[in-house]
Amino acid sequence: MAANGSAQNGSVGDVPEDANQHCPGTEAETAGKAAACAGCPNQQACATAPKGPDPDLVQIAERMQTVKHKILVLSGKGGVGKSTFASQLSFALAGKDKQVGLLDIDICGPSIPKMLGLEGQEIHQSNLGWSPVYVEDNLGVMSIGFMLPDPDEAVIWRGPRKNGLIKQFLKDVYWGDLDYLIVDAPPGTSDEHISIAQYLKATNVDGAIVVTTPQDVAIIDVRKEINFCKKVGIPVLGVVENMSGLLQPLSSLTFKKIKDDGEEEDVTEAVLRELLQSSQESIYAYSEVFYALGGGAEKMAKDMKVPFLGRVPLDPQLSRAAEEGRSCFTDASCRSSAPFLNKIIEKIQLSVETENE
Amino acid sequence: MAANGSAQNGSVGDVPEDANQHCPGTEAETAGKAAACAGCPNQQACATAPKGPDPDLVQIAERMQTVKHKILVLSGKGGVGKSTFASQLSFALAGKDKQVGLLDIDICGPSIPKMLGLEGQEIHQSNLGWSPVYVEDNLGVMSIGFMLPDPDEAVIWRGPRKNGLIKQFLKDVYWGDLDYLIVDAPPGTSDEHISIAQYLKATNVDGAIVVTTPQDVAIIDVRKEINFCKKVGIPVLGVVENMSGLLQPLSSLTFKKIKDDGEEEDVTEAVLRELLQSSQESIYAYSEVFYALGGGAEKMAKDMKVPFLGRVPLDPQLSRAAEEGRSCFTDASCRSSAPFLNKIIEKIQLSVETENE
Repeated sequence: MAANGSAQNGSVGDVPEDANQHCPGTEAETAGKAAACAGCPNQQACATAPKGPDPDLVQIAERMQTVKHKILVLSGKGGVGKSTFASQLSFALAGKDKQVGLLDIDICGPSIPKMLGLEGQEIHQSNLGWSPVYVEDNLGVMSIGFMLPDPDEAVIWRGPRKNGLIKQFLKDVYWGDLDYLIVDAPPGTSDEHISIAQYLKATNVDGAIVVTTPQDVAIIDVRKEINFCKKVGIPVLGVVENMSGLLQPLSSLTFKKIKDDGEEEDVTEAVLRELLQSSQESIYAYSEVFYALGGGAEKMAKDMKVPFLGRVPLDPQLSRAAEEGRSCFTDASCRSSAPFLNKIIEKIQLSVETENE
Repeated sequence: MAANGSAQNGSVGDVPEDANQHCPGTEAETAGKAAACAGCPNQQACATAPKGPDPDLVQIAERMQTVKHKILVLSGKGGVGKSTFASQLSFALAGKDKQVGLLDIDICGPSIPKMLGLEGQEIHQSNLGWSPVYVEDNLGVMSIGFMLPDPDEAVIWRGPRKNGLIKQFLKDVYWGDLDYLIVDAPPGTSDEHISIAQYLKATNVDGAIVVTTPQDVAIIDVRKEINFCKKVGIPVLGVVENMSGLLQPLSSLTFKKIKDDGEEEDVTEAVLRELLQSSQESIYAYSEVFYALGGGAEKMAKDMKVPFLGRVPLDPQLSRAAEEGRSCFTDASCRSSAPFLNKIIEKIQLSVETENE
């Protein structure tokens, strides 16, 4: 290759090296003045601060002592249902009487408050630290979404500032005793990911669940994400393939006759009448949604020697539960996705709880 | 709110202020040593470099003089089909004999090489600068994807380094005369977005197309993205709602009978035999995919006083075209999405070409 700009220099894909290069951003963190530097009120002081072990990391480790299991939910690509999965995982574990915390570190696009039905809530401070917002007694949530005066405003922050807030979340939130802390990360392998990996590494993190959709353009990014985990030493608990086709009760479909001149005619009633006399609810229509040229997530997981946890079909009712901020397990509404999700969550529990207890 | 950590300080959502705060990262850029600082080999020199107007911005403006129209493709959320839209927009404009450049500034998850069928290609350098990779004579592409020795490796870069590469792309790529430069950005409103906005602002950018999916959790992030555009002074050319339901020829569906004991029986043949004697291709099944609690993108666009460009149904054949790196306009394969895409692209051309010519 002729034009090897900065992209090919040694530290591509090498976190430990990159993270210790004393970039302006990284130095600000390791200098132990993270909060001040992240907000950048005093850049000179940050840049010239003495290097040394970060006292914040000690505080994070102390804070995390009351948390039994720490699970990261990652994806290489956005929009694969990562936050939906993190939400439903939290709902499911709380439903099994676990004490659960859900931490949203997606600073620019926090979806968790909405998906837990907590829009408009605010966090409060006590002498123990920031208090999470509680859905139920055993399900607490923390997100930058609770700290924004206007939900429409963009959070236009560069990396160092995002890292500062993530550190504060880990250091200053009073979770109390938790069975599970689920961390929902934004897509990618950049600032937030380097930071959360650095900060959690000292705290005995259980591992990461990597969520993807079946198509190759998503799988390509997920391979990167798995390599990221390997580089930073975070075990991959497994891969979840989301939106694996659309499985729908026949009765929820609309049928259209599209004529050559582009005219549409709704023929739903005629079609359903013809097909369904009594057994309407039990016939489902299935369609591929994303074309998986490369064999999807199962093949990729096998190639990369990480566990494959299962497939979840794209279920409009699951999307609806996420929109309305509720669990998809408490009623029978998510009939085409809940059984698949449940199986996956059981596998996760098994792998995490037997390993550490 | 009690716990107003760094998230509520004045500059939330205020680009110009945030960008001029002399954060470590920002300073490195404005100091005119971007390339060196972005890779961080010499952090001390970066931090103490004299401040002043950035000569790189002058070079960018010169480089962009041969480009008639510059369009950003943005989304607040990942996975909404932004790169698919940017690809098909480029294919469509090239198909209309325009000279088109497509620049992928998604550093951590570059999808463009695959979606243009250019995987494994490399860029070359001449005395005019870096040469794009060409799909056809009139469609050139630039992406970090062409610069990575191993496509599975994660690009684990913090912000300043990403900004350095984006600047190099704008400054050092020799596009020649272009009718359109389409810039595909990663999701969010962070480093890459602040940088591309800063760099392109001096070059008379036409505006941004904002891509979303219908559900509120996506719309929330898109509102942020539109406010970002307003803050940094980039006109919003319009909003595209993608994955607006799934529209499928009946013959592509599978039908299953799911019994109470969980057993599945494939009844596709029986269902289709009953329904379709002769007119198989003309009956389409339509299903909502994402539940749009808040009225979807059209209502949001109206609320925010930006143009709504139209809806594109989720089309497995469009996903397939993106997987295989080809245009969805050259054959009849994308029957359920191509007509919708075409209408939108015509609107974009009309708005851009009549305004500036």
